[in-house]
Amino acid sequence: MSAEKFVGEVLGTMILILLGDGVVAGVLLAKSKAFASGWIVITMAWGMAVFAGIAVAGTFTGAHMNPAVTLAVFLDNQVKSTGAFGVDSLLGYWAGEMIGAMIGATLVFLHYYPHWAETEDPGLKLAVFSTGPAIRNMTWNLVSEIIGTFVLIFVGFSLGNATGVNSSIGGALGWGLLVLVIGLGLGGTTGYAINPARDLGPRIMHAVLPIAGKGSSDWEYSWIPVVGPLIGGALGWAVYYYGITEFVAKALGPK
Amino acid sequence: MSAEKFVGEVLGTMILILLGDGVVAGVLLAKSKAFASGWIVITMAWGMAVFAGIAVAGTFTGAHMNPAVTLAVFLDNQVKSTGAFGVDSLLGYWAGEMIGAMIGATLVFLHYYPHWAETEDPGLKLAVFSTGPAIRNMTWNLVSEIIGTFVLIFVGFSLGNATGVNSSIGGALGWGLLVLVIGLGLGGTTGYAINPARDLGPRIMHAVLPIAGKGSSDWEYSWIPVVGPLIGGALGWAVYYYGITEFVAKALGPK
Amino acid sequence: MSAEKFVGEVLGTMILILLGDGVVAGVLLAKSKAFASGWIVITMAWGMAVFAGIAVAGTFTGAHMNPAVTLAVFLDNQVKSTGAFGVDSLLGYWAGEMIGAMIGATLVFLHYYPHWAETEDPGLKLAVFSTGPAIRNMTWNLVSEIIGTFVLIFVGFSLGNATGVNSSIGGALGWGLLVLVIGLGLGGTTGYAINPARDLGPRIMHAVLPIAGKGSSDWEYSWIPVVGPLIGGALGWAVYYYGITEFVAKALGPK
Amino acid sequence: MSAEKFVGEVLGTMILILLGDGVVAGVLLAKSKAFASGWIVITMAWGMAVFAGIAVAGTFTGAHMNPAVTLAVFLDNQVKSTGAFGVDSLLGYWAGEMIGAMIGATLVFLHYYPHWAETEDPGLKLAVFSTGPAIRNMTWNLVSEIIGTFVLIFVGFSLGNATGVNSSIGGALGWGLLVLVIGLGLGGTTGYAINPARDLGPRIMHAVLPIAGKGSSDWEYSWIPVVGPLIGGALGWAVYYYGITEFVAKALGPK
Repeated sequence: MSAEKFVGEVLGTMILILLGDGVVAGVLLAKSKAFASGWIVITMAWGMAVFAGIAVAGTFTGAHMNPAVTLAVFLDNQVKSTGAFGVDSLLGYWAGEMIGAMIGATLVFLHYYPHWAETEDPGLKLAVFSTGPAIRNMTWNLVSEIIGTFVLIFVGFSLGNATGVNSSIGGALGWGLLVLVIGLGLGGTTGYAINPARDLGPRIMHAVLPIAGKGSSDWEYSWIPVVGPLIGGALGWAVYYYGITEFVAKALGPK
Repeated sequence: MSAEKFVGEVLGTMILILLGDGVVAGVLLAKSKAFASGWIVITMAWGMAVFAGIAVAGTFTGAHMNPAVTLAVFLDNQVKSTGAFGVDSLLGYWAGEMIGAMIGATLVFLHYYPHWAETEDPGLKLAVFSTGPAIRNMTWNLVSEIIGTFVLIFVGFSLGNATGVNSSIGGALGWGLLVLVIGLGLGGTTGYAINPARDLGPRIMHAVLPIAGKGSSDWEYSWIPVVGPLIGGALGWAVYYYGITEFVAKALGPK
Repeated sequence: MSAEKFVGEVLGTMILILLGDGVVAGVLLAKSKAFASGWIVITMAWGMAVFAGIAVAGTFTGAHMNPAVTLAVFLDNQVKSTGAFGVDSLLGYWAGEMIGAMIGATLVFLHYYPHWAETEDPGLKLAVFSTGPAIRNMTWNLVSEIIGTFVLIFVGFSLGNATGVNSSIGGALGWGLLVLVIGLGLGGTTGYAINPARDLGPRIMHAVLPIAGKGSSDWEYSWIPVVGPLIGGALGWAVYYYGITEFVAKALGPK
Repeated sequence: MSAEKFVGEVLGTMILILLGDGVVAGVLLAKSKAFASGWIVITMAWGMAVFAGIAVAGTFTGAHMNPAVTLAVFLDNQVKSTGAFGVDSLLGYWAGEMIGAMIGATLVFLHYYPHWAETEDPGLKLAVFSTGPAIRNMTWNLVSEIIGTFVLIFVGFSLGNATGVNSSIGGALGWGLLVLVIGLGLGGTTGYAINPARDLGPRIMHAVLPIAGKGSSDWEYSWIPVVGPLIGGALGWAVYYYGITEFVAKALGPK
């Protein structure tokens, strides 16, 4: 995989996490002007952060910004034997997404610098970086992450049929609205990581950065928002590929 | 009707209900991160759930996801004697929509699994699955569902004139914004079922699934969100067909 | 002017007012599921109600739905001597807009029927139908309506440059977002009638309909949301025509 | 630079500030119908105000409406030696943006005229016109403004790749959504001026206009939202140019 694609994924994911983790900081950290401004603020920001990230890298890398998306693209190329997206691309994209997420989280740390010391609860500080469950239950938290990411990949891949070109502004907006509605509809349980890099990259930075008054990085939970999205992404791709591409679309074609 | 169209409607409606019933669960169930986050959250999610469902199935089946839409399409084909959408299609789409809604409701049950036992009020649990009236009055509740679905079909069919192709991302967004504004403007009375499958499918699953601490499925009310939308849909189609297509458009053509 | 254009304006304006007055009913009337759901709900609904109305009539009549828009179109045709939109069109559109607004308001009355008797404050009932000022001051209330409608016409006419075709879904969405932002940015003072038919038509129906426990229709204020928008619309058109069309665009052309 | 371009920038920026400062007035001033309606109202309005401003001037001037955008365009033309946007354009645009912002702020003063005397806190009155920090810390406030404007320019310039034509309605909407998400994600610290003209122009008018019960114009802070956005804009352009244009895009081209 080329260095240019790596840089593209880094830059796109950096913007996603800067704006996405940024809104959680704005809503949770003490004295922020966006303090306690609600679920619509958080979900709208994450949706439009996806839009912004695709604007940056969509035309160059497809702007996965999410290892679950990259896994689905990899599976798609494997089953079709295109040879266009092999293991080197899989690993290269994953690395770019992780690096980008870590840079984005660091920028959030800097952007809200004076607010960390003003905030008492260390749990809120972790929540800016990484997700945590509303009710801690490893089995069902995993199910939630699987279902959320299933919807992301299944509907997101379908968007290509509806939009023609994923990298157009229509496609960028479509993916943004999709992440908005996943947040609104399915985010109440685990905070919809639905993206291993979005959760693990910032969690590493939470552990590393000198955040005033920080607490545990909750490593015990950290595998759920990594494993769940990868399973959900693979499932979403499988239902899309065998359900839509191979079954429905082969018979009906675009209407 | 082909099995492929049936599967398309199942998948599209499944996504609609998973995201739509999902947001009600997020706002109503105890300990959810989206708890009590308000009407804009509910209405935005249902609107964008329609967008997501159309992204899945729009290019293949038209993504009705709603027996009232299917009835209107059926009437349209009958009056035009196209022969393209007969009784078999009507019944096949209806079946697909019901099955899809039931699968979607089941996924919501699983997604929010630990939250059912944490929620005390059984009325809130039913509200996740099916609509209920703000003020119980069978006559006026029926009128509300008729008016809401009239707007859905009348304006939705008109969108085709404004967008050219219903299955494009513009059309998907248009239908999504339409359902958003119907929810905002007309949802306060009966919770805007405006779709028999959206209400009856999940209500059946509410009766069937082992939901912790559930109460009545309120079958007494259940015919309103089925009959009302079918009447409203037929009316909406009639005003569109005789008002716009046969009267206004025939004389003026597209501007 | 043809009967078809009249009917188109009636139907478009009916949808605008049904959804727009509908959201005010939803937010203000007792026991509504949307009760007290806030300014974003009201402004988003009015914006998307404009979108829905344009979807209905945009391709046939331009979907003015507003006598101030019609006045601006009339002035535009007069100054260009096109002969395409004369006094008969001006009066015909105005009549259609008033009739449509009155039908829409009546549908809101029916849609929320059981809620009127449940609501105590007669001022809230009037507010569903017509606007009133936050601080009653005839001079400054008039200024507010002039400025709001100036923005509507000046920016709305400019949208044609940005979108190419006003009747496309892009144009419909553009006008909807414009009315959204006018509501958000300028609605706090007089409730942004910015449309004589939107205010006067429903006010007449408030006086006529048998609304349980209604009070005054506030005729004393009623001329402000009629005269203000007409002045503001003419001003908005003048700045657009002499500022953009004749000055900026003539020299620069579309970039 | 031509007088027509100057007038275009004046008119576009006037609309931006009228709608943007307008929403702050609506949310903060006593007795406003939008009083205390929250962060989503403020951020949505500023986003769509950008959309409206681009609708006015986008096809003629590019609708910078922001000296940081103009600086980035200037740098872009210098490094490419196009000769199309020299120092005269830089200064001409800057002047137009400042004049437009001052006219827009004056219209907000008039639009909300009766509300100034009703509002007690002079700090809220200044907040309508200009930004102020949540936690006053010159270093970190400057960092916040740099980061916010970096995102604006870096992602905004990238939008051109995603949309083809910046002046289309897609581009206008894209910039609007970008400003929405910057507000949501990064606005909590300093109120996201990210635009020297947006802050300094209205601050001058706050000092000049006869606002009832006004207090300090806080000149001590006033350089931050001027210098920060100019640095952030130059940085955003540099990362876009050397990262995307010269590195990623040169190798990969549009996908």
